[in-house]
Amino acid sequence: MKKLINEPDAVVTEALIGMQAAHPELSIDVEKQIVYRGDAPVAGKVGLVSGGGSGHEPLHGGFVGMGMLDAACAGAVFTSPTPDQMLEATKKVNSGAGVLHIVKNYTGDVMNFDMAAEMAAAETGVAVKSVVTNDDVAVQDSLYTAGRRGVGVTVLLEKIVGAAAEEGRSLDELAALATKVNESGRSMGMALTSCTVPAAGKPTFELGEDEMEIGIGIHGEPGRYREPLGTAAQIAERIVEPIIEDFPLKGGENVLAFVNGMGGSPLIELYLMYGEVAKILEGHGVSIARSLVGPYITSLEMAGCSVTLLKVDDEMLKLWDAPVNTPGLRWGV
Amino acid sequence: MKKLINEPDAVVTEALIGMQAAHPELSIDVEKQIVYRGDAPVAGKVGLVSGGGSGHEPLHGGFVGMGMLDAACAGAVFTSPTPDQMLEATKKVNSGAGVLHIVKNYTGDVMNFDMAAEMAAAETGVAVKSVVTNDDVAVQDSLYTAGRRGVGVTVLLEKIVGAAAEEGRSLDELAALATKVNESGRSMGMALTSCTVPAAGKPTFELGEDEMEIGIGIHGEPGRYREPLGTAAQIAERIVEPIIEDFPLKGGENVLAFVNGMGGSPLIELYLMYGEVAKILEGHGVSIARSLVGPYITSLEMAGCSVTLLKVDDEMLKLWDAPVNTPGLRWGV
Repeated sequence: MKKLINEPDAVVTEALIGMQAAHPELSIDVEKQIVYRGDAPVAGKVGLVSGGGSGHEPLHGGFVGMGMLDAACAGAVFTSPTPDQMLEATKKVNSGAGVLHIVKNYTGDVMNFDMAAEMAAAETGVAVKSVVTNDDVAVQDSLYTAGRRGVGVTVLLEKIVGAAAEEGRSLDELAALATKVNESGRSMGMALTSCTVPAAGKPTFELGEDEMEIGIGIHGEPGRYREPLGTAAQIAERIVEPIIEDFPLKGGENVLAFVNGMGGSPLIELYLMYGEVAKILEGHGVSIARSLVGPYITSLEMAGCSVTLLKVDDEMLKLWDAPVNTPGLRWGV
Repeated sequence: MKKLINEPDAVVTEALIGMQAAHPELSIDVEKQIVYRGDAPVAGKVGLVSGGGSGHEPLHGGFVGMGMLDAACAGAVFTSPTPDQMLEATKKVNSGAGVLHIVKNYTGDVMNFDMAAEMAAAETGVAVKSVVTNDDVAVQDSLYTAGRRGVGVTVLLEKIVGAAAEEGRSLDELAALATKVNESGRSMGMALTSCTVPAAGKPTFELGEDEMEIGIGIHGEPGRYREPLGTAAQIAERIVEPIIEDFPLKGGENVLAFVNGMGGSPLIELYLMYGEVAKILEGHGVSIARSLVGPYITSLEMAGCSVTLLKVDDEMLKLWDAPVNTPGLRWGV
């Protein structure tokens, strides 16, 4: 296992220590493993809380800041945070306007966020709503999931709903918008290599030197199938066509096209993939209104990529373009 | 070779096609492999041109835009662009205020940029000045270099001098500032794994499963030494202490601390490394004024990292904080 780490059990804690040193504008509770906006709670604003297992950086801690999340709970690598963390984060970002939980659809995350919401309501009367993302079209159920997995759309949702929260919208309005964003997005991913969970010390799965896995999950969960290593054009077809079919996109739609790196694939390859994705969309008469290319929801050092398409309207575009100031996404400020 | 590509010879061209699709605000000459600001030449402003072999993305094409470069020439992977490309870029971004070439110290790059500057002067009378970056303290001469290699400080220089160019400073002033930034910066890198140049199809060098290479170059050029795989704390010591000694930093300095990923190391590890770097700096009484953490000057999919420290004064900080709008670095706009 070749990693820039000290000891496997300390990875998450030490990464948070480094993140705090690099981003003094954030307030990081290293012991409880929660990343907050430095100015939380923001008066009059609904608090946005997300979280999940570590290993997907910059998701979620790197999306904390003005215009996105108010707090993110970090679990152990590929392991849900605890209800206690989520409760603590919920209380800390509640300014009285309520709190929205943004939850990727994995059994542990959903259960723990539900429990935290109940505890928050019972203990302090905080109004909490939850939205669950489930945009991965690859498989219906999976290793850690009943129903579809939540993946790339989570990044886009946190940005768009975060911008709406800055406008002072109500908890109900934000929950409705978050549901709409999730329903407007679809994703699929693939892997060239496995990743290695530090505590496990060996690759999560074995993949031959001439094989790739199509439909992989962000924890290395099995995808749809394995096949011989293909070209970028073939890979794009394998993961974009199922998304188009699932929507379905019939042509004439506007989308935000997001090519995400799994952690070990360099930017030169992601841009090349973006070109292939754009070509397929053009062939279907789908227009790209905005783009995002880079490693934003990763799977440790896995090589590979995922594609997320989000059908956008003018309101979503306006919210996407609104100022944001987080370690992972920043513009307009 | 597991990469998201079609054919090895088409990687750079196809990545540029994808980049153009993702960034319609840029103007990319795919045939000549030059990335321009969409609004080049900018009236009254000195044009900033850089370039080098591909495989280091986002450097340099990803740093083209308001507040950084006016143009970047992309060579084949790890191969200098040609004088013709540099001449073309120089002419295209010249508004009459002159052009500054920002050149990493590799024999091919230096020779070709020199030739382009001479051709530009002879052909069109454009005033051209060059600054060569040579911040890598690891080795004195190397595979492709007489003198020290130009690495991480190039990113910081392009940002700082780019901001100064937006202020309307003269070519002489910008050349002097660029020289000062280069002299104020030091870097050193290390690798956990090799990278594979697409056209070669096999790893550039062999590194055992329990070995790491200290002082590596961004083309996989040999470093100072190999040793058994160490912890993040040991790695930070191996690459930060030589930088501190080389300056030397005696305590009381303000620095911009930049932990760069080589392409295959995920963000969670880079933040962990940043924490170790910050600890060492604190021990030496060096203050961190700004930070940058992420893959900004990469070596394809190599796993590993480099550290760049830049001694900063108030002017450099103001220029660092100024608005920038490029695919790779964006804030304030």
